[in-house]
Amino acid sequence: MTKRKVILDCDPGHDDAISMILANANETIEIEAVTAVAGNVEVDKTALNARRVCDIIGLDVAVAEGSNRPMVRETQIAESIHGDSGLDGPNLPDVPKTPVHDKHAVDLIIEKVLESNGDITLVPTGPLTNIAMAMVKEPKIVPKIQEIVLMGGGTFGNWTPAAEFNIWVDAEAAKVVYESGVPIAMFGLDVTHQAQATDETIDRFSKVGNDVSEFVVELLRFFKQTYKDVFGFDGAPIHDACTVAYLIDPSIFDTVDVRVDIETKGEFAYGMTCVDLLGVTGQEPNVKFAQGLDQDRFWNLLEEALKSYS
Amino acid sequence: MTKRKVILDCDPGHDDAISMILANANETIEIEAVTAVAGNVEVDKTALNARRVCDIIGLDVAVAEGSNRPMVRETQIAESIHGDSGLDGPNLPDVPKTPVHDKHAVDLIIEKVLESNGDITLVPTGPLTNIAMAMVKEPKIVPKIQEIVLMGGGTFGNWTPAAEFNIWVDAEAAKVVYESGVPIAMFGLDVTHQAQATDETIDRFSKVGNDVSEFVVELLRFFKQTYKDVFGFDGAPIHDACTVAYLIDPSIFDTVDVRVDIETKGEFAYGMTCVDLLGVTGQEPNVKFAQGLDQDRFWNLLEEALKSYS
Amino acid sequence: MTKRKVILDCDPGHDDAISMILANANETIEIEAVTAVAGNVEVDKTALNARRVCDIIGLDVAVAEGSNRPMVRETQIAESIHGDSGLDGPNLPDVPKTPVHDKHAVDLIIEKVLESNGDITLVPTGPLTNIAMAMVKEPKIVPKIQEIVLMGGGTFGNWTPAAEFNIWVDAEAAKVVYESGVPIAMFGLDVTHQAQATDETIDRFSKVGNDVSEFVVELLRFFKQTYKDVFGFDGAPIHDACTVAYLIDPSIFDTVDVRVDIETKGEFAYGMTCVDLLGVTGQEPNVKFAQGLDQDRFWNLLEEALKSYS
Amino acid sequence: MTKRKVILDCDPGHDDAISMILANANETIEIEAVTAVAGNVEVDKTALNARRVCDIIGLDVAVAEGSNRPMVRETQIAESIHGDSGLDGPNLPDVPKTPVHDKHAVDLIIEKVLESNGDITLVPTGPLTNIAMAMVKEPKIVPKIQEIVLMGGGTFGNWTPAAEFNIWVDAEAAKVVYESGVPIAMFGLDVTHQAQATDETIDRFSKVGNDVSEFVVELLRFFKQTYKDVFGFDGAPIHDACTVAYLIDPSIFDTVDVRVDIETKGEFAYGMTCVDLLGVTGQEPNVKFAQGLDQDRFWNLLEEALKSYS
Repeated sequence: MTKRKVILDCDPGHDDAISMILANANETIEIEAVTAVAGNVEVDKTALNARRVCDIIGLDVAVAEGSNRPMVRETQIAESIHGDSGLDGPNLPDVPKTPVHDKHAVDLIIEKVLESNGDITLVPTGPLTNIAMAMVKEPKIVPKIQEIVLMGGGTFGNWTPAAEFNIWVDAEAAKVVYESGVPIAMFGLDVTHQAQATDETIDRFSKVGNDVSEFVVELLRFFKQTYKDVFGFDGAPIHDACTVAYLIDPSIFDTVDVRVDIETKGEFAYGMTCVDLLGVTGQEPNVKFAQGLDQDRFWNLLEEALKSYS
Repeated sequence: MTKRKVILDCDPGHDDAISMILANANETIEIEAVTAVAGNVEVDKTALNARRVCDIIGLDVAVAEGSNRPMVRETQIAESIHGDSGLDGPNLPDVPKTPVHDKHAVDLIIEKVLESNGDITLVPTGPLTNIAMAMVKEPKIVPKIQEIVLMGGGTFGNWTPAAEFNIWVDAEAAKVVYESGVPIAMFGLDVTHQAQATDETIDRFSKVGNDVSEFVVELLRFFKQTYKDVFGFDGAPIHDACTVAYLIDPSIFDTVDVRVDIETKGEFAYGMTCVDLLGVTGQEPNVKFAQGLDQDRFWNLLEEALKSYS
Repeated sequence: MTKRKVILDCDPGHDDAISMILANANETIEIEAVTAVAGNVEVDKTALNARRVCDIIGLDVAVAEGSNRPMVRETQIAESIHGDSGLDGPNLPDVPKTPVHDKHAVDLIIEKVLESNGDITLVPTGPLTNIAMAMVKEPKIVPKIQEIVLMGGGTFGNWTPAAEFNIWVDAEAAKVVYESGVPIAMFGLDVTHQAQATDETIDRFSKVGNDVSEFVVELLRFFKQTYKDVFGFDGAPIHDACTVAYLIDPSIFDTVDVRVDIETKGEFAYGMTCVDLLGVTGQEPNVKFAQGLDQDRFWNLLEEALKSYS
Repeated sequence: MTKRKVILDCDPGHDDAISMILANANETIEIEAVTAVAGNVEVDKTALNARRVCDIIGLDVAVAEGSNRPMVRETQIAESIHGDSGLDGPNLPDVPKTPVHDKHAVDLIIEKVLESNGDITLVPTGPLTNIAMAMVKEPKIVPKIQEIVLMGGGTFGNWTPAAEFNIWVDAEAAKVVYESGVPIAMFGLDVTHQAQATDETIDRFSKVGNDVSEFVVELLRFFKQTYKDVFGFDGAPIHDACTVAYLIDPSIFDTVDVRVDIETKGEFAYGMTCVDLLGVTGQEPNVKFAQGLDQDRFWNLLEEALKSYS
């Protein structure tokens, strides 16, 4: 069996952690590297958290620290959602055994892609700074990236009325990525808000009863509470895990090929992903846009993944 | 009974015409004037169409011609949706008996509002050019407008991925109106796409069997076909009539008080109404935003209106 | 002799007043109307000041009050330059004998131009709100305006680093005017900063010794002081009078035909007039741009005008 | 004597080459590295040209190839000015002996600055892509850069009416650099257009009579002709050499401390450096802005440099 080679570019982050757990559990996916980016919190924290998650789930892979600020704007973080550590809730190892890689994330991405046979998929679940920086620093990677399967954007926003957090943090980076010509599968709020972990979900995962499932349960309890407090949601959307779930089983999702453009000039709509669902722009599609989710199969997939850690 | 005094500012337009029919049929509404604006087609055509509709439905009221171009941008029209005349489908009187008023629409709006007791509601169902021009020319009208009940915008677009036609045509005018401080009830695509006239609706109206119902049936047949051709819809959204339906019976609609800002600077999101449904801007609401529609009661209201012409 | 028919659209304002004085003194110019706009101060003050100046200089002409706010933005004024009244310095009649015209400035402009033989020149020396509003309300005036000779803009700014006050106040209006196709002669800061009244100038005018010259001297003393205080200039630029001087004797000025575009989207350059002096845009010229001024002849012209009031 | 350590970040380019020649000739300047960026032509050509110039002038230093595209926009080049090679005119070695460094320019800049004692000055004479990319990739360099002495911008443009080529190519990079807090000395068109090499200058340099002076003469002949053809100038502005001349003898230049902001959102003014010469923004200065040039001393400096190669 040919495994799907991925680089998880992330800012853990509760749902990033769950995304790592899902990828690590699956035999069809080979994690080439984990690269951290500033987003939910600063990059030293997201890199530390990525290493902590590797410790907890037994993932032995290069973890590189990347960009600590957006390409053009000032740094923006989201502590209100993920807590001071970026991964509040569970007990976390102070000093993880998993080391930080000596290369910058941007360089590790460039190296891995250039050395590949064009079979590496990038899976960004934070702001797109690392990916865009790699494309600008070394444009030769662009035709060698197999696909970009990302969490970000949507037809509505959560950080402003028009923009989702990941894209809003670094809309210029998003513009670079969306205009690159690399095939993109996009998991925005339209679909990730269908992946809300409820008390029932948490109970179900709790019954799995191993260390990793317990870690996830604690993540979800914290995350569910902040979504309740900040957005009034009853469940915690496991945004980032949709990307890996799609790589494992694309049939879980309904997708449509559409043109998506990134708004970088707007006064109120900065960071919006303008999704041409009605086909009114007359532009060729550049994105496979996920609209629907088979919730039963999604949660089954996660549960199976958790059980595999037993 | 105190009647609700309204000025219908419109660009008929199939759904504008139905909006006029609904308002004229209702005893609780007093139409103070009909003012035409460029939008679906040029203003000479929309004014002519407004007069034609007055003829057909026996509405005796001042019909004034207004602005023939947006405030800042070049003229934009939508012939693809409404045909060359702006009201293609039914037979229309070449030279309507209803005269065109000698005042410019902007001046008629100013005059009516200044002379009123603060009890006039503006009902714009086209681009907001006339309303904004009136506010800029005579700012004294602003505190005397009771309410603006408009069709426009939404959390998604139909003319671009981000913008609905009416707002996109003249986003600068929309900005003036939305920032004016006048109470606004907004019927955007979120709700108007729930008011799609299907073959069943048309059959039902056809059975009413008077001249006005027959006129509406012919409008709907044409409109339904263009929505099928251009957007792939199975029904024709009677966008504009939502405004008048709300004035007659607000309980037909679910609304929420939100902040809405107009994007006028964006590269891809020009003309977007940024609707803060999650309350993330921290701004005070300036709009009553319609989200839901009781379809049965909406169609009943229209059917009753048509029957009243018998 | 055929006189040049002009409408002075202004926001007096010290230099607007001097512009009126120059126009009124010259036999080749026929002032059809004076129309006031908000700019240096609110429109009720600029209209009042225009009437006051008419009283003082014996000008019997329609003075109409116009727009009191920009087309899209919030109201912006410049009291720091012109004082609380907008015309601080000289004693002013509390209640001028010159009445305010019963028409709105926008309507008076439309009426005069439509009734003309295409021989009216508009001379805006404030924000372009009235002119643009007239063009939007009645597009038929556009091909009938002979020329627009305006004070505004330049290759550098005075209100922001990029923008001159008149254009910055209402850049959207400026965009409408500059894109209208009407021939424009533009007197921006490049040339008006060459028309700085110094102590020597003031002494010279003081020796003329009539009521109007004395009024001008008092205007210049106040204006010179604020330019010293705010900008550190040694002289007071008589910006607006350049327009009328050009109409009287264009040979006083060096001009070049260029493309000028108005920046309305910029973050830092909002309201800039982008003057294509190097011809790099490849666009057809839309503006006769004044670069140089024969100072001796300019001051002589003003002195002769003042003497004519004796 | 403590030498001034510099990294020349450039896109040779005729005037970039002269800047290298001037720096190499001067005993007070120590060139730590030459880094190439896309600008006048693609980066493979500018890196090749930098190596060729090193061969010709006997400069033994690391020459690294950098970014081949702007941070956000599409690639933009200026072949019309510098010819197909980017250095048309003189005979150039096909395969220079000077090797290309194995590090990317962005990484070499980061390495040099981090290893330094905070005594490295960056001298960018092309688009600011490499510098901004380095700042985003490794923000720790920002407080360790002694100064940035750059050619770019001005109060007027040469590529658009508002923007100079270097800044216009990558305004987002310029925004990052100008907002970084690093002290900036800026040599824009205001001053570099005062450094025009005329026939007289070329004759003077021709008399120096060594290989390097002959190389410069051939560069200038080509460059002078394209400035004549494209801009109608009688002389060739040696833009980039102003930066190095300033490092050698700042007293040659008149400078003023001002606030400069970069326009990245504008429709017509994209890439403008908004220079607050009148102090109207109320912002703290972030730039030492060169306005004037002692032409005699500037040309003497260049002539002395050429003679030193004998």
